[in-house]
Amino acid sequence: MELWFTERHTSNVKFSIRVDRQLYSAQSEFQRIDVFDSKEFGRFLTLDGYMMLTEKDEFIYHEMITHVPMAVHPGVKRVLVIGAGDGGVIRELTRYHGVEHIDMVEIDPLVVEVCRKYLPRTACRLDDPRVSIHYEDGLKFVRSVENEYDLIIVDSTDPFGPGEGLFTKEFYGNCYKALREDGIMVNQHESPFYEDDAVAMQRAHKRIVESFDISRVYQAHIPTYPSGHWLFGFASKKYHPVRNLNAVAWNMLGLSTRYYTTQLHAGAFALPYYVEELLRDVE
Amino acid sequence: MELWFTERHTSNVKFSIRVDRQLYSAQSEFQRIDVFDSKEFGRFLTLDGYMMLTEKDEFIYHEMITHVPMAVHPGVKRVLVIGAGDGGVIRELTRYHGVEHIDMVEIDPLVVEVCRKYLPRTACRLDDPRVSIHYEDGLKFVRSVENEYDLIIVDSTDPFGPGEGLFTKEFYGNCYKALREDGIMVNQHESPFYEDDAVAMQRAHKRIVESFDISRVYQAHIPTYPSGHWLFGFASKKYHPVRNLNAVAWNMLGLSTRYYTTQLHAGAFALPYYVEELLRDVE
Repeated sequence: MELWFTERHTSNVKFSIRVDRQLYSAQSEFQRIDVFDSKEFGRFLTLDGYMMLTEKDEFIYHEMITHVPMAVHPGVKRVLVIGAGDGGVIRELTRYHGVEHIDMVEIDPLVVEVCRKYLPRTACRLDDPRVSIHYEDGLKFVRSVENEYDLIIVDSTDPFGPGEGLFTKEFYGNCYKALREDGIMVNQHESPFYEDDAVAMQRAHKRIVESFDISRVYQAHIPTYPSGHWLFGFASKKYHPVRNLNAVAWNMLGLSTRYYTTQLHAGAFALPYYVEELLRDVE
Repeated sequence: MELWFTERHTSNVKFSIRVDRQLYSAQSEFQRIDVFDSKEFGRFLTLDGYMMLTEKDEFIYHEMITHVPMAVHPGVKRVLVIGAGDGGVIRELTRYHGVEHIDMVEIDPLVVEVCRKYLPRTACRLDDPRVSIHYEDGLKFVRSVENEYDLIIVDSTDPFGPGEGLFTKEFYGNCYKALREDGIMVNQHESPFYEDDAVAMQRAHKRIVESFDISRVYQAHIPTYPSGHWLFGFASKKYHPVRNLNAVAWNMLGLSTRYYTTQLHAGAFALPYYVEELLRDVE
């Protein structure tokens, strides 16, 4: 038998993974949730048919969205994580002893339940006593918060469907307000390569630039996302992502990683010229 | 009508591009050659069914294999290019007025003929008076050359089929000998992500390390190659790829690029930890 999962990266490009079996499938209040097992990527989760994570390459996304801000801010204690129902960001964050409290705001309880059951490698730290899970719309949650967090990580889906509100000017403005005076916001920032992704990326960047004093973009190689060239946004009230990198302090923590290094940290902000141009066009 | 070109990136992963029409197909003495037209990527060339280049993203590969060594070596005059029948490397090299002579050694004359006809955007500088095209096996060509070149660019296909000899210890040893005392060799170095590619990458690296004093690896985002995470090897007798980067001199040349920048140059050598580990394992 041959069973293939296929995602259209554009209407003219398909990426297909041979599947051993489908482990789970359901429609939640918000989206369709599927989990598959595969030889090449291990287990993987899709939402509305879009790849969210695979066991083989999730470390790249989760390390890059977490350790980059953590190596810049000298003392993160309170963190807000939006989305992230798979638990990957929480797993990385809870490795820091200095982190005292994490509010995780996930709109869809079923995603968390499914990941606890089928993706224990990412969901393994959701029961850490420092983590409070709120099943709410992230957009609404941040409206009522002020001067509360050192770090906000926006681990959203794409800018359509349930994740749409997490790409709005109102949302970024509220994140700014929810951060302390030296707070950092990091978000998944789409891709520069295919046209529709690039437009979404530009739109997000424009709105973040309007809200934050410092706003830079960094990149990683994530093979199972469209084009494999994925971006993250680093927005901050005070810290510069490269000049304020404290490599010595971070390396002293002794955290082992498979993608992130403090050398790669600086390199990740050195973007291709065409990406710099796309960003400049909306700054 | 739907017409799709599909490449298996591994036996369990497929990448498919919607094709408008097939422009050319033939079997040469060495390989099967096809050219397609597509909406997403423009025209693209495959050899034995493997993606060689697309009009949309070839600039990434060609800029990164050419400008990285050119921004390090202070005075490249004589260049040997092996493979590169599509002309993309030649196009980038001939932009440098300081380059006096380029020997291009391509085993398959039909590739050159086809690219001249169907891929004028890459083949556009093959008639530059400084270029001598030799239809020969690159492995044999370098055997008889000594102390001749400032730069060798190995723009090979994969390490099986016609390109196999360009991944051998004998070949790298002969390249070393063919270079002047401050010469640089750059090669396409496969990918670290999928297992078979990673093994090929390690094997190439091991052999280059055995032949050259300085041997470093750098990366780029090339969406149409397996995993999108592609590597290049920088091997040298004297120059370090980052410490000897002369950013001021290169920027003074005023060459416009779409991917390469001298800032990105240094960043491209900052590899993910798992890639560093794969390389260290064979050093």
